[in-house]
Amino acid sequence: MTASSSAPFVAVDWGTTRMRATLVGMNGEILGRAASESGVQSVPAGGYQKALDDACEAWFSTNAALPVLMSGMVGSRNGWLEAPYVSPPCGPADLAARLIRVPNDARPMFIVPGVDCRTDDGGYDVMRGEEIQAFGAGVKDGLVCLPGTHSKWVEMEEGRITRFVTFATGELYAALVQSFVGRLAEEPADVEAGQRLARTLSQMPGGLTRQMFQARTQVLSRNVSGRAVRPFLSGLLIEAEISGARDLFGAGHVVHLVAADPQLQPYRSALLHYGFQVIDVEPEGATLAGLTSIAASLDLTSTGPAL
Amino acid sequence: MTASSSAPFVAVDWGTTRMRATLVGMNGEILGRAASESGVQSVPAGGYQKALDDACEAWFSTNAALPVLMSGMVGSRNGWLEAPYVSPPCGPADLAARLIRVPNDARPMFIVPGVDCRTDDGGYDVMRGEEIQAFGAGVKDGLVCLPGTHSKWVEMEEGRITRFVTFATGELYAALVQSFVGRLAEEPADVEAGQRLARTLSQMPGGLTRQMFQARTQVLSRNVSGRAVRPFLSGLLIEAEISGARDLFGAGHVVHLVAADPQLQPYRSALLHYGFQVIDVEPEGATLAGLTSIAASLDLTSTGPAL
Repeated sequence: MTASSSAPFVAVDWGTTRMRATLVGMNGEILGRAASESGVQSVPAGGYQKALDDACEAWFSTNAALPVLMSGMVGSRNGWLEAPYVSPPCGPADLAARLIRVPNDARPMFIVPGVDCRTDDGGYDVMRGEEIQAFGAGVKDGLVCLPGTHSKWVEMEEGRITRFVTFATGELYAALVQSFVGRLAEEPADVEAGQRLARTLSQMPGGLTRQMFQARTQVLSRNVSGRAVRPFLSGLLIEAEISGARDLFGAGHVVHLVAADPQLQPYRSALLHYGFQVIDVEPEGATLAGLTSIAASLDLTSTGPAL
Repeated sequence: MTASSSAPFVAVDWGTTRMRATLVGMNGEILGRAASESGVQSVPAGGYQKALDDACEAWFSTNAALPVLMSGMVGSRNGWLEAPYVSPPCGPADLAARLIRVPNDARPMFIVPGVDCRTDDGGYDVMRGEEIQAFGAGVKDGLVCLPGTHSKWVEMEEGRITRFVTFATGELYAALVQSFVGRLAEEPADVEAGQRLARTLSQMPGGLTRQMFQARTQVLSRNVSGRAVRPFLSGLLIEAEISGARDLFGAGHVVHLVAADPQLQPYRSALLHYGFQVIDVEPEGATLAGLTSIAASLDLTSTGPAL
């Protein structure tokens, strides 16, 4: 889904570790790009305006009223300004109606709210940024899978988010490669051997805490080399995520996979293995399309109370 | 099960983080105890004899030929001397027949081999030390559960180990409390609230990587306080282990639980919840009984080739 905005604006994807800004023209066309390593975890208190100005200086200097629309962890408690969560069902217009205006005399600047979700099984989940990619993934009805430190699976109906859940896949992987079970890992990774072992051992009864110990013992027993350890652990966690998502959402669905390397190939392979159909979605394009769809539903140049 | 040895000996439980020595008399009675923090991870290369002498000086000085029987990580590749693994089925006599003699002119000193196990599902597991506790737990036929960094579940038939598996429960817990999902943890722990939440959310479809993220969101949503985070994560992993063991070994079994505080209560509670019957076994007593049962099956004072 690409939507045209009524006026040029700067779309900012501002996450934990980096910031990406895109100058979007009247018809949704990309007029320029900027990026910086000033993620939310590295911007000092009170330093957001400067970090933004530094990245967008060329655009701002020629247009003092150019509006800015930001999404991601920039709206978290540790970000620039805390934006509330909107609960499903919600689409771009629902988030647009709940934008937070960043105080600034000159320039209209807005932060998109996050989305939270309570599920019937007692779960509670939050996201900031992934909802934008879900909107931009071109899905009317279906599932969106967004791999990451905290992978999100988003269920969409009529272009609106109806439910989502989180799997701490990337975080657990980072913890395990630092831990005892990952200690026999060697580089360069033997991706094929690791993934093959993960596919086999993810079927072992006993669950993840049993399976992950095999990252050590399968090397000790010389079944695989240390080069298989990291792709094995990664594969095991991806299989656990996808098999868990199948339990939650049912099998056979079309999944829009918003991923780039190195997640793209292992996720696609595991999704197909578990009986899903896969449509690849390029992450940066999805973010831009999502922010543009929000911009399209309002007049960003306005500074009135509706915003 | 307590067995009497034919002569006094020193039983040494030498693990990664500490060493415990017990002077055992002719009839299996405890004549003295010593302990040190000289675990395998802190003893320098070539320093094992000195660490042992320091701990047992009082006994050694009066009996130059007092035999020593050691088990645990002291027999690993990074220990004093690498002892091989024995494969199931194996009982005390099988391990006694494969002792490794530590070269020493004066004193007979032996290291008990570890046990390894290949399971039909492709798993491979190893243990050093837990097999001794399994032998000492007084189980003829049944299951032994030994919680720890790498929890072991040991299946016994006719007093011999027939199968065992590992769950990296303690290791994963240690990784998670250091990780992002554990960051909202507060002390003192609210054990009851954490365990109650774990019992509920361990039933959530999607598996462990979904459930563990709730350690964060359930605090954000004020369902529990930060004081519930650690007992919640611990409880979630214990439930995963026990539910995994039920898948592996079947329900309804009697489980001999070799555990002390703080593992004892949450494991017992979860075992009962999952339909197991529980018999508590005191860990130090089990180690001593296990080493004594091995000593009983041979003459430790001999230095002949059979040893």
